[in-house]
Amino acid sequence: FHQVHAAKSFVRSITVGALKPSDTFPRRHNSATPEEQSKMAEFCGFQSLDALIDATVPQSIRIQSMEFNKFDDGLTESQMIDHMQKLASKNKVFKSYIGMGYYNTHVPPVILRNLLENPAWYTQYTPYQAEISQGRLESLLNYQTMITDLTGLPMSNASLLDEGTAAAEAMAMCNNILKGKKKTFLIASNCHPQTIDICKTRAEGFDLKVVKVHLKDIDYKSGDVCGVLVQYPGTEGEILDYGDFIKNAHAHGVKVVMASDLLALTMLKPPGELGADIVVGSAQRFGVPMGYGGPHAAFLATSQEYKRMMPGRIIGVSVDSTGKPALRMAMQTREQHIRRDKATSNICTAQALLANMAAMYAVYHGPEGLKTIAQRVHGLAGTFSAGLKKLGTVEVQDLPFFDTVKVKCSDAKAIADVAYKHDINLRIVDNNTITVSFDETTTLEDVDNLFNVFALGKPVTFTAQSIAQEVENLIPSGLTRETPYLTHQIFNSYHTEHELLRYLHKLQSKDLSLCHSMIPLGSCTMKLNATTEMMPVTWPNFSNIHPFAPTEQAAGYQEMFDDLGDLLCTITGFDSFSLQPNAGAAGEYAGLMVIRAYHMSRGDHHRNVCIIPVSAHGTNPASAAMCGMKIVAVGTDAKGNINIEELRKAAEANKDKLAALMVTYPSTHGVYEEGIDDICKIIHDNGGQVYMDGANMNAQVGLTSPGFIGADVCHLNLHKTFCIPHGGGGPGMGPIGVKKHLAPYLPSHPVVPTGGLPAPDKSEPLGAISAAPWGSALILPISYTYIAMMGSKGLTDASKIAILNANYMAKRLEKHYPVLFRGVNGTCAHEFIIDLRGFKNTAGIEPEDVAKRLIDYGFHGPTMSWPVPGTLMIEPTESESKAELDRFCDALISIRKEIAQIEKGNVDINNNVLKGAPHPPSMLMADAWTKPYSREYAAYPAPWLRSAKFWPTTGRVDNVYGDRNLICTLLPVSEMAEEKAANA
Amino acid sequence: FHQVHAAKSFVRSITVGALKPSDTFPRRHNSATPEEQSKMAEFCGFQSLDALIDATVPQSIRIQSMEFNKFDDGLTESQMIDHMQKLASKNKVFKSYIGMGYYNTHVPPVILRNLLENPAWYTQYTPYQAEISQGRLESLLNYQTMITDLTGLPMSNASLLDEGTAAAEAMAMCNNILKGKKKTFLIASNCHPQTIDICKTRAEGFDLKVVKVHLKDIDYKSGDVCGVLVQYPGTEGEILDYGDFIKNAHAHGVKVVMASDLLALTMLKPPGELGADIVVGSAQRFGVPMGYGGPHAAFLATSQEYKRMMPGRIIGVSVDSTGKPALRMAMQTREQHIRRDKATSNICTAQALLANMAAMYAVYHGPEGLKTIAQRVHGLAGTFSAGLKKLGTVEVQDLPFFDTVKVKCSDAKAIADVAYKHDINLRIVDNNTITVSFDETTTLEDVDNLFNVFALGKPVTFTAQSIAQEVENLIPSGLTRETPYLTHQIFNSYHTEHELLRYLHKLQSKDLSLCHSMIPLGSCTMKLNATTEMMPVTWPNFSNIHPFAPTEQAAGYQEMFDDLGDLLCTITGFDSFSLQPNAGAAGEYAGLMVIRAYHMSRGDHHRNVCIIPVSAHGTNPASAAMCGMKIVAVGTDAKGNINIEELRKAAEANKDKLAALMVTYPSTHGVYEEGIDDICKIIHDNGGQVYMDGANMNAQVGLTSPGFIGADVCHLNLHKTFCIPHGGGGPGMGPIGVKKHLAPYLPSHPVVPTGGLPAPDKSEPLGAISAAPWGSALILPISYTYIAMMGSKGLTDASKIAILNANYMAKRLEKHYPVLFRGVNGTCAHEFIIDLRGFKNTAGIEPEDVAKRLIDYGFHGPTMSWPVPGTLMIEPTESESKAELDRFCDALISIRKEIAQIEKGNVDINNNVLKGAPHPPSMLMADAWTKPYSREYAAYPAPWLRSAKFWPTTGRVDNVYGDRNLICTLLPVSEMAEEKAANA
Ligand SMILES: Cc1ncc(COP(=O)(O)O)c(C=O)c1O
Ligand SMILES: Cc1ncc(COP(=O)(O)O)c(C=O)c1O
Ligand SMILES: O=C([O-])O
Repeated sequence: FHQVHAAKSFVRSITVGALKPSDTFPRRHNSATPEEQSKMAEFCGFQSLDALIDATVPQSIRIQSMEFNKFDDGLTESQMIDHMQKLASKNKVFKSYIGMGYYNTHVPPVILRNLLENPAWYTQYTPYQAEISQGRLESLLNYQTMITDLTGLPMSNASLLDEGTAAAEAMAMCNNILKGKKKTFLIASNCHPQTIDICKTRAEGFDLKVVKVHLKDIDYKSGDVCGVLVQYPGTEGEILDYGDFIKNAHAHGVKVVMASDLLALTMLKPPGELGADIVVGSAQRFGVPMGYGGPHAAFLATSQEYKRMMPGRIIGVSVDSTGKPALRMAMQTREQHIRRDKATSNICTAQALLANMAAMYAVYHGPEGLKTIAQRVHGLAGTFSAGLKKLGTVEVQDLPFFDTVKVKCSDAKAIADVAYKHDINLRIVDNNTITVSFDETTTLEDVDNLFNVFALGKPVTFTAQSIAQEVENLIPSGLTRETPYLTHQIFNSYHTEHELLRYLHKLQSKDLSLCHSMIPLGSCTMKLNATTEMMPVTWPNFSNIHPFAPTEQAAGYQEMFDDLGDLLCTITGFDSFSLQPNAGAAGEYAGLMVIRAYHMSRGDHHRNVCIIPVSAHGTNPASAAMCGMKIVAVGTDAKGNINIEELRKAAEANKDKLAALMVTYPSTHGVYEEGIDDICKIIHDNGGQVYMDGANMNAQVGLTSPGFIGADVCHLNLHKTFCIPHGGGGPGMGPIGVKKHLAPYLPSHPVVPTGGLPAPDKSEPLGAISAAPWGSALILPISYTYIAMMGSKGLTDASKIAILNANYMAKRLEKHYPVLFRGVNGTCAHEFIIDLRGFKNTAGIEPEDVAKRLIDYGFHGPTMSWPVPGTLMIEPTESESKAELDRFCDALISIRKEIAQIEKGNVDINNNVLKGAPHPPSMLMADAWTKPYSREYAAYPAPWLRSAKFWPTTGRVDNVYGDRNLICTLLPVSEMAEEKAANA
Repeated sequence: FHQVHAAKSFVRSITVGALKPSDTFPRRHNSATPEEQSKMAEFCGFQSLDALIDATVPQSIRIQSMEFNKFDDGLTESQMIDHMQKLASKNKVFKSYIGMGYYNTHVPPVILRNLLENPAWYTQYTPYQAEISQGRLESLLNYQTMITDLTGLPMSNASLLDEGTAAAEAMAMCNNILKGKKKTFLIASNCHPQTIDICKTRAEGFDLKVVKVHLKDIDYKSGDVCGVLVQYPGTEGEILDYGDFIKNAHAHGVKVVMASDLLALTMLKPPGELGADIVVGSAQRFGVPMGYGGPHAAFLATSQEYKRMMPGRIIGVSVDSTGKPALRMAMQTREQHIRRDKATSNICTAQALLANMAAMYAVYHGPEGLKTIAQRVHGLAGTFSAGLKKLGTVEVQDLPFFDTVKVKCSDAKAIADVAYKHDINLRIVDNNTITVSFDETTTLEDVDNLFNVFALGKPVTFTAQSIAQEVENLIPSGLTRETPYLTHQIFNSYHTEHELLRYLHKLQSKDLSLCHSMIPLGSCTMKLNATTEMMPVTWPNFSNIHPFAPTEQAAGYQEMFDDLGDLLCTITGFDSFSLQPNAGAAGEYAGLMVIRAYHMSRGDHHRNVCIIPVSAHGTNPASAAMCGMKIVAVGTDAKGNINIEELRKAAEANKDKLAALMVTYPSTHGVYEEGIDDICKIIHDNGGQVYMDGANMNAQVGLTSPGFIGADVCHLNLHKTFCIPHGGGGPGMGPIGVKKHLAPYLPSHPVVPTGGLPAPDKSEPLGAISAAPWGSALILPISYTYIAMMGSKGLTDASKIAILNANYMAKRLEKHYPVLFRGVNGTCAHEFIIDLRGFKNTAGIEPEDVAKRLIDYGFHGPTMSWPVPGTLMIEPTESESKAELDRFCDALISIRKEIAQIEKGNVDINNNVLKGAPHPPSMLMADAWTKPYSREYAAYPAPWLRSAKFWPTTGRVDNVYGDRNLICTLLPVSEMAEEKAANA
């Protein structure tokens, strides 16, 4: 037996670098290894990745380097989690009775884990490819059905951003319904203050006059009123009967919008039955955490009459190529890119994930379960009210209420201070008024604690439990809900955890997400949403904070906001950021409103022309229109670049009226326009401001920046470049960064004043543009952790590799498809366009055929026919491995060969594997097979599909049929059964 | 406009009950609503559920009611989470340098979320149905490949329970290899103390003599040595060259077992190359949290020669009905139910989920990544050692080490106390010896903190970073690893998060779990594993605690253990519990050893006969054999009951030698034997103890109890009745409860003394039977929360509904299949058996054909041919809804019709839809279809499959082929490619 000593001959010393923590993040996010980078760059004709980047990003706009004040080296994953835990511990979760549209709720754990924390749900894209999206389409249809049932109006969309903007959208609808002829919109003073403020902001661009007025003072004498907004129950809790009120409004030709509460509507007569034209509200309290303000799904319901005026996405029932019922987004041609300068809404990314959560909450509880919850909340509020009356220390309002009790007292502040000491937040309405809102999480013990607070030192001789018997149901009989709701079997089947678990997984199994394969949607930046980034989102100390809680209770959040503002300033070259806009389009709108305010502040009231290239995303003109700007379009040249001469002429012609240019960079064509310096200069020379659409920021970070390029304001889609997952159509975040001169005008908020981060010297803020002070605060940790873990170098590498990956794919594909628009050195930016227009003539093939055939290869199609009709735009992102890029290229090349077969006349131009795509199993294993090609050829066109394949669940969905026969709620089971039988 | 006041006419008062929290749990876990309960009971011929239960459970053993000292009413889900957070906060996470087989590790977040926290992985069963288990089979094959690569031995199993029991299994193998002829097993003193202790305990039953001996004192002169166990690196860190040692042992005919460390083996010459016969160890530090002791996967690798002696499950490569490679459990006929009294291992449930985690950790890091981690850990240990030498306050051992530095000092306790104040745990070996083990999570700052501790007040004039340069790699050159490992492409492809995410989801998509449909495996109790139960498992304050940390740091755990012990005592009618056994079979073994110790203590050394009914689970005789007991089998009567007269005779015949009876209740036939009172009496009258196998506890809770019935000891499979998910073949927990007289003998532990909970008056404990003091402590919160949320009534209802569901199904099926064995009133317990033996003659159909055809219906087959060959045993559990039960019955009834078609001669007896099952898509949509039945008939035999179907991924797997051509590691890619090409 031999012991062994260190054999000195073999010793090598250890480097300090080798002792640094090993769980570094950038190599998990960025795909290509250094060796792969070199190889791929060489394949593209460059000596190195850096050479490729140098040739691609114009020298004039290249920044030397980027350095962060914090996190410059990047934290490891475990360091990040530690850091976030420290931040979380700085947030204090008080018991909130603030209400105002935000309530505590129990997120059912089965939904938390299997939906909110499940990448198979949260990494989905908007269901553009219906055949691989039937799961979430069903869930969103459940959502729409839930909204229509509870509001009593037959049409609902699939979510809006928040209750406040939903009200503003409804206001715009009223304006539209009356064709812009009546320019006053009344808002009852019993609406939430943030709702009122958002409508006021939004009205400016529509040239509407918003008048806040007490209900009893409302009259329509002016003859100029298009609509009125009331709240039911009111912000201070009261339940009023609006029946006659609505009749009166209608008699004056005035449309009535009601803001309402879904839980209350399980007990109250629905607004539809009262005669409301539009109902808006938030689905937050249906199992979506408050999250310091969002994200949550807002809803908007209306009558059949106005359905084609509804903003947002709407899911509808149609049929597939085999005649079976199938779902898809209805009326897609309505999307904002069509309306452009006539648009009255710019909503694009909404709140799909949160709508799904709310819908699943209703599925889990069912109608009876929801009513039980509502009655309990109402009972606790009643118990509280009865107890206060017994106590006699304060005066209780005597109007009927659902969940919110209004109290008059001599010193509201004193009571609030006592509450504060008990970790309780109340709403202080004014010096003598407090409201207390109850919710699903309140217990009898909580009510006892409140008694102690309101007793002001007086002994409490009873308990909530002891007086509960005496408490009465206070819903007025005339307003008691009588019509049933959620009668569809989906809301009456999945009430045990196993049943809901399986329903969730059944739907999930129908939907392609980033868990399966790349989703190379151009302009959408579907990159990795890393687990570490997602983890803090569901920690209670982030998720259970009311947006209007005193800011010192949210010190962790506030620290993160400050640091995130600072990091984003460094990344963008700006001086200040607003975190309020909760989607990209909301950012555009906010940014243009800032520009507008700036011009106004200088007396330039006449500056209202916005120049927008024709290649712009549809939200750009829509946002400009919503700001009351006049749009002047400029064209692009053959290379896809903005026609600078045309731009110059337009700017000079509008010299005195020029407000802004909206420009996307790199361009929506995927090119770094060399003339961007000139472009900015022309605009500035003519008195305009440059608004940069930051959707393509993934090609800029660390290489250049909007600020460096010369933009004055820019929004960032945090759900693109900064890793917030797309959730099947939201949530997103669209913060805006600005140069110093614009910082004073960044939006504020009526309840919790906000402004630029870092704060500018002076402040003349816009009103609110979102319901919550910092938008969807709960998802900001995602972007924050991404930036902090990547560090400045990791982020810069990400940009480079995103560009490399796009160029690598373009190079592989160029022999098979024309690649449109490249830069001066023949490279593209982080995305590129392949041109399919030729195949229309040679083979009868359209982009949709290629996209649907890609489904058979296991892939989600690229962006179709935008920004150029007849093309596909491909954006791989830095997170996709070379192996995945190669598979995708192989698929497209293989499809090209399939097209060639048609061109050669070898296969039928009308009946071929592209036109027949996608091929679901039901079709492929049907006894009858009448296609001219083989089953296996349809099913397994590439070798990798043999080891695992994601199957579409329907044949190609018929959009036209669905739009002609618009059905936007669940089919009654009987009809489905008939359909099923017919197709069995 | 009208205000509305409370319409008094409509008022109704609110009940206190309606104000209780609404997120109650039992209705989420138990499926049938009260209305359904009545209907289903009526369908079974009873007036009510209670009437059915009264008729089913023998009156003589019914308990009146069950009442808990705590949680009797059950907590709601949110109350439970709050309570667990409080417990978690009582656990203090110190930085652990204790080592001894347990190390801190970074669980890669992508694995945490998508595997450990993913019900699609953790609710899987052992892969008995290979065609719907190819995902985890691949992952376990990765695990086996990883183990063989790193140990340098060609055969590995798919996990064992822990390192200590793995060593004991290896010891038993040595005994077997030498055919029991040499009865001494040597253990080097450089092994972990818990390993030594477990081997000592285990040796007793095998009549082996374990001698702990210092390496230098080892000799084989006695000629009686079958094997020797050494550790590499040793428990105190030293790296020794065992090459000559092994040669010498072999020269004496002695087998060598090496306990080793996977991370060290990335740098060290593998044991296989040194000549070891068997290598064991733990895969914990490969990304599995310490969890205060478990669960973790242990491994055992050996040579080709001994492969058929390996304990545990082994995954192997075979082919499917279409000739394609397909995986399945190899050599299943070896499972313990075959060997019975000749068994030397009883392992059944192992640690599949944790083996999968460890394998995925290796997949994610790859060979280079693992080596980087190992070098870093080694470098930090070296830096620490170098710093201590500089400090000069203590003496550093001079043997080479990998991660553990051994220190000699004058007062170990004094240093440990300073460390304690810095939230640091060290290992105190003795008064003058400390070891410090480094791991993946250690940082340079941590090393600095250690310097401060060891400086004992002396100023530290350097930092870890400053001295790192001087540090040398200390792996002896002769022991430096030279052979490559993990060269298979699977370990070299998935190193970015997107790639690993997709690999995980690709595998997941092949496996059926409780996320899809019921898994009605008789005797397995596949009930709901609720999310709330699972959540605390991944909280850091539960997962990051070393099992040998001072108990006061684990006050939350300790409180939970105490309460869980108390609750389990109430549930079982016992007086004390041991939480140490980490699977059911380990519980059996521990329980029998307790009985043995009891007899010994009374001088009854001769009591070694164990009576076991022939219907017992195979683990029962295996466990008895391992305790050195002689097994006397007794038969069952036609009704499936134990033949009492035979039992009486056997007991009386063995009156003087009777040790125990092992009995399962209700019986493995799913019947409450009326004679159980008699049975217990007979055993006791003859001096024996009654061991109850608690696998069927789900039919007892709240209705009767083992203690009440008369058992003296019983194990509970917490992974059956008490909701620990099965994880695809483990983890599990098998705590044992005992009557007062047995309590003193419950197992203890050499490092952290344990014993009964509540603690008995006197204590003469067994040695350790698991490596960790409280077994797999990390998963105990699952059972604890289940019990606490259900409360006594919810649990009792669960038992009733489990019985109801089984009877409902039996009733529905009895017209179609003979139902074997029912109680006196014609009811079954919580499970029942359908008899398929007749079909062998009438239609050539075997149970396997029915199970495989069930896959086409979207279901996992019931337990096949156990306990009665030719039958299926169905156990629905209380968590399955009536809708699900009906679907399963419909499937079986439909299959019965398919069998009838064969019986009638309408279809070919050798070529029909049952023999051809299951039908994967690749078969169903192949161009060539040569079956005599249609594709659609094969694919969609039931209507519900049209809306969503879980597809098998291979045709029927050929077990015989695989066992003849045993391949238990990943095929080289080239072979796979050839196979693929051949089959493409
Ligand atoms: C160029 C561009 N601008 C704006 C938007 C709108 O962003 P959001 O959907 O977040 O409102 C998009 C969305 O795809 C876009 O691609
Ligand atoms: C009746 C019975 N006893 C014992 C066991 C063994 O339990 P484990 O697999 O946890 O070791 C089982 C497992 O299924 C069983 O059914
Ligand atoms: O695991 C079983 O052998 O049942």
